[in-house]
Amino acid sequence: MSRSCLAVILAAGESTRMKSSMSKVLHPVAGRPMIAHVMSSLAASDITDVALVVGRDAERVTEAGSIEGLNVSPFVQTERLGTGHAVLAAREAIARGYDDILVAYGDVPLITSGPLLAARAALAEGNDIVVIGFHTDKPTGYGRLLVKDGELIAIREEKDATDAERAVTWCNSGLMAIDGRKALDLLSRIGNANAKGEHYLTDLVEIARSLGGRTVAVDAPEEELTGCNNRAELAFIERLWQERRRHELMVSGVSMIAPETVFLSHDTVIGQDALIEPNVVFGPGVTVEGGAVIHAFSHLEGAHVAAGATVGPFARLRPGANLAAGAKVGNFCEVKKAEIGEGAKVNHLTYIGDAFIGAHANIGAGTITCNYDGVNKHETRIGEGAFIGSNTSLVAPVAVGDGAIVASGSVITADVPDDALAFGRARQEVKAGRARDVRARNQAIKASRSAK
Amino acid sequence: MSRSCLAVILAAGESTRMKSSMSKVLHPVAGRPMIAHVMSSLAASDITDVALVVGRDAERVTEAGSIEGLNVSPFVQTERLGTGHAVLAAREAIARGYDDILVAYGDVPLITSGPLLAARAALAEGNDIVVIGFHTDKPTGYGRLLVKDGELIAIREEKDATDAERAVTWCNSGLMAIDGRKALDLLSRIGNANAKGEHYLTDLVEIARSLGGRTVAVDAPEEELTGCNNRAELAFIERLWQERRRHELMVSGVSMIAPETVFLSHDTVIGQDALIEPNVVFGPGVTVEGGAVIHAFSHLEGAHVAAGATVGPFARLRPGANLAAGAKVGNFCEVKKAEIGEGAKVNHLTYIGDAFIGAHANIGAGTITCNYDGVNKHETRIGEGAFIGSNTSLVAPVAVGDGAIVASGSVITADVPDDALAFGRARQEVKAGRARDVRARNQAIKASRSAK
Amino acid sequence: MSRSCLAVILAAGESTRMKSSMSKVLHPVAGRPMIAHVMSSLAASDITDVALVVGRDAERVTEAGSIEGLNVSPFVQTERLGTGHAVLAAREAIARGYDDILVAYGDVPLITSGPLLAARAALAEGNDIVVIGFHTDKPTGYGRLLVKDGELIAIREEKDATDAERAVTWCNSGLMAIDGRKALDLLSRIGNANAKGEHYLTDLVEIARSLGGRTVAVDAPEEELTGCNNRAELAFIERLWQERRRHELMVSGVSMIAPETVFLSHDTVIGQDALIEPNVVFGPGVTVEGGAVIHAFSHLEGAHVAAGATVGPFARLRPGANLAAGAKVGNFCEVKKAEIGEGAKVNHLTYIGDAFIGAHANIGAGTITCNYDGVNKHETRIGEGAFIGSNTSLVAPVAVGDGAIVASGSVITADVPDDALAFGRARQEVKAGRARDVRARNQAIKASRSAK
Repeated sequence: MSRSCLAVILAAGESTRMKSSMSKVLHPVAGRPMIAHVMSSLAASDITDVALVVGRDAERVTEAGSIEGLNVSPFVQTERLGTGHAVLAAREAIARGYDDILVAYGDVPLITSGPLLAARAALAEGNDIVVIGFHTDKPTGYGRLLVKDGELIAIREEKDATDAERAVTWCNSGLMAIDGRKALDLLSRIGNANAKGEHYLTDLVEIARSLGGRTVAVDAPEEELTGCNNRAELAFIERLWQERRRHELMVSGVSMIAPETVFLSHDTVIGQDALIEPNVVFGPGVTVEGGAVIHAFSHLEGAHVAAGATVGPFARLRPGANLAAGAKVGNFCEVKKAEIGEGAKVNHLTYIGDAFIGAHANIGAGTITCNYDGVNKHETRIGEGAFIGSNTSLVAPVAVGDGAIVASGSVITADVPDDALAFGRARQEVKAGRARDVRARNQAIKASRSAK
Repeated sequence: MSRSCLAVILAAGESTRMKSSMSKVLHPVAGRPMIAHVMSSLAASDITDVALVVGRDAERVTEAGSIEGLNVSPFVQTERLGTGHAVLAAREAIARGYDDILVAYGDVPLITSGPLLAARAALAEGNDIVVIGFHTDKPTGYGRLLVKDGELIAIREEKDATDAERAVTWCNSGLMAIDGRKALDLLSRIGNANAKGEHYLTDLVEIARSLGGRTVAVDAPEEELTGCNNRAELAFIERLWQERRRHELMVSGVSMIAPETVFLSHDTVIGQDALIEPNVVFGPGVTVEGGAVIHAFSHLEGAHVAAGATVGPFARLRPGANLAAGAKVGNFCEVKKAEIGEGAKVNHLTYIGDAFIGAHANIGAGTITCNYDGVNKHETRIGEGAFIGSNTSLVAPVAVGDGAIVASGSVITADVPDDALAFGRARQEVKAGRARDVRARNQAIKASRSAK
Repeated sequence: MSRSCLAVILAAGESTRMKSSMSKVLHPVAGRPMIAHVMSSLAASDITDVALVVGRDAERVTEAGSIEGLNVSPFVQTERLGTGHAVLAAREAIARGYDDILVAYGDVPLITSGPLLAARAALAEGNDIVVIGFHTDKPTGYGRLLVKDGELIAIREEKDATDAERAVTWCNSGLMAIDGRKALDLLSRIGNANAKGEHYLTDLVEIARSLGGRTVAVDAPEEELTGCNNRAELAFIERLWQERRRHELMVSGVSMIAPETVFLSHDTVIGQDALIEPNVVFGPGVTVEGGAVIHAFSHLEGAHVAAGATVGPFARLRPGANLAAGAKVGNFCEVKKAEIGEGAKVNHLTYIGDAFIGAHANIGAGTITCNYDGVNKHETRIGEGAFIGSNTSLVAPVAVGDGAIVASGSVITADVPDDALAFGRARQEVKAGRARDVRARNQAIKASRSAK
């Protein structure tokens, strides 16, 4: 598209109904602030310049909205005198002169580039105002879009509507594109002679038409225009986002047994023929290659799972977990900042942190890499094909060589050479018949406790 | 309200379709017996006296229904001759003389005080009978409420209804308020000249009107009147309860990413700006303060989580777990009857029971408080800022002093003074090249096993 | 039923929209290949002979479809010239001579015996062709069943339908029963004079009628006819299957607090008065007896849980886990190929594999059976009433006698006699004031690291 465009994003609401210590548009959807979702859709609509109208938490909102590829300038809205007034907070940016001005909202994060590009295309056809509408079977409360001969002749508010007009189910979303050359003039003509004394952006339709301009509406799916006023609505938006993304992944060849129990992040990548079992949570930064299996009750963040690797059930991969092909991380295991080599197994009740596990090594149940001394983190290196017996403590920094064996229950504090056998456990002693005495003593303690 | 009221709660059903070893009304919703939910709504409707008509499991039902603030008297229904007959099981209580008699059901646990107070208010206006109705788009099978000039002129059973009457979507819930001074007389007039030979409470409308009385209906949301006949319906009621409570919490400022995966208890308290991630189960007695974070896959019962504390993922807090501000309990950790001090960390694969963990102490991965000797439980005390190395066993009763350090893999059986360093682990031994021999021997064992 | 029947199952599709490395009909529903579900319904419809028309993955599909009680013969379809052509791939089997020929599909796994038996019964009444139809409120795209005087007079494709015909909501499922004596003749008459040049099975209605035959339709629930073209539809089928089975279990007396979070396998058996909490996943081969409790976040495969036993939360039972009455397996515990005796407790952070745990034994937190030497698995036996202290490593093969006690933190490598007390841990040493030195040294390391 050769036309220039400024997006004006309104994000200055007080959002008191969120009952939140931060601005509404900072609340995350799929692990990413709402405002950033809107910005991504702008970037996908061939837009580079954004005027971000901010109020509460202005700095954090600007930072969250400043995604790569966009020039975002914040404009602080100090008074709240209606949407028309809010857009004019960005007067200075609008005055730079753009072909298109696009007005959208920081709390409508599901909008995609489709309707935005359609609105811009309609401007390019010579329209002055393009309203983005949506069809709904619950129109109550929304302004209705009245169309005649292909033109949008009015946005009729519910209270002013006739019965016939109320039956219209095409509604105003509030999103709008404005001819950039006329925008400042049109916006400055919005009055506030209404009950609330506010300047309404929707008045632009009437104003433009009174000046002989042409106004139209384009359609968007209702879902994309879902807004957010409280945290129940935020959860609903999250749900719509998740459903959209799960569906995309499934039709691309990812199996999900119970997609409604799989929670994706905005950047989750999953390859074809991967299987995601029920109850899996993806934090940010996860890549799962094709053919990998993520078993039920797994939690992944910042991790990479290669083809043929399996995770879970009940596994947690934290940032820096990197599973090579065919590696296994099993139940009640946590892996952080560690390479798990090809075909290596970390199957049971284990903590692996700051470590390199060689290919085909076997880490026994209950193994702990003791990577923290209270101040520093230290590394553990396990060689290829090494065998770490169950319940072993590997006190880092420490290295176990290729093919080495560590006996179960050992505390390993010094390096173990290749092919060596290492022990670090006490010799067993048995006291015949003594269990009876211990029980008797414990019962006596119990009796004396009860006596008190 | 200055009028006296007796609630008659019918809870004597056989409930054979529940296929249960206990009475239906004892089955829990949100961790609390159905009957107790009904009782709470009575208490919230300015009612103090309750006649509980019981059959199966009479004692347990009475106990479960006897909540604080209510005087509950059980009346055993021995024969099952219809709802009218069931109410008269409480004849003795009704005869005490009340302004209002309210009839409700032990298996309709979602009823709130709203409709009950509305019914009582309608009695106060001089009506003899007040039926609680509900609007539904699936009226089939229900008695229809026929209203004329504001009066309820009949409850028409489906089989007796004309087509026009069947089109009515306002239906009889079975809940009813009766003028207390006339109740015994009216109830005694209910006959059983019908196909089943039962005494139907709904006949009261016709009876009262034939005596010149005035009868009306008040409305309640259909959801509140959902009844329970089998365990699928019980699950549906649980779902409606959960949805209601989750919504209340979200609009009050609690964030839930996937509310449909968060299971609350009847008494769960969560403060504003707390974040509850997907897949969290709250058992009874949990309080989460504002700003706390409960990560995915966490299970809490009888626990307190202070502001800024974080729990999970994959954490279990059991009764008596008390997390101070900024404390962390992480993955595959269980905490029971223990104080976790301000900013203290219990992050990985740890069991803490019967313990006091000082502020800013760090408990290494795989630490176990050995609190049980097979007979008694013993306490563990960890000082402020102490560091417990990974995979340590703390054999209680034992205390580790402030600022002390316990080396990884230790078994600690005696107190460790402040600022001391404690070890309790064997010295490591290494046998060079011996891993090869071990493997050879193990392979030989395998071969001999296969040979058998 | 005394009539013979051949089922012809079409399972040769390329299923490219599945984006899968295997044939669509091999994808599992409830842990079992789709094709096996179809086969089970055939077996339940008094059918023994099946002609399985295969293409991709012919061998695996045949194997997956060859369930007990059916004689399944594979026929490879080499060209794709329409459903009529596909059925004739089984010409040789049809030619054997059957009373009934039933045509069904490998990717319609929810079909039950009800509609199949109804279709066969309609053949027995003398009809030549019996089409299985379904009522739907979204008929768009389906062929409509046009019925007159009880006969099916045509299957009208959407594109050929009048407005009145389009309003019909009874649609063609594609499943069909054919008079076995006429089948080959009728099938051979299907032409391909249509836009795609394919042979359509639905033409049989017109063909049979033109020869004076009688054709009818029978009804099936829409749900049972849900087909699968991509993995989103596969997930939808899984969901319908799960909802059906959960409902069956609940009405049979199983309690589920949140049935939508319980995932069953095709062969899961649960007894009356068992309680299944939210978020439980059943793999294949699980039996839960009445009165058992499966707490939240549990994962079971190939396990047996006796009456009064409790599992979870956060427990994993793997194949061969066998819990006797009143046994408990608690949080972050894994049990594999092990008997857990009556009333025995395995409550916290434990791995039990290849073991026999005696009645009323208590296994402390963090216990690990070290059952694998890198090559072989070995057994652990714990006697009745034995007490295994926390964080113990049991190095198999090893046996702990009845009533014996193992001290916390021990490594047990040799058998412990009945009633003996066994230790295997190092003596504790304390270095007064040394924690300060350790911290100072660690801080120095940190400083030197930062300096780099």
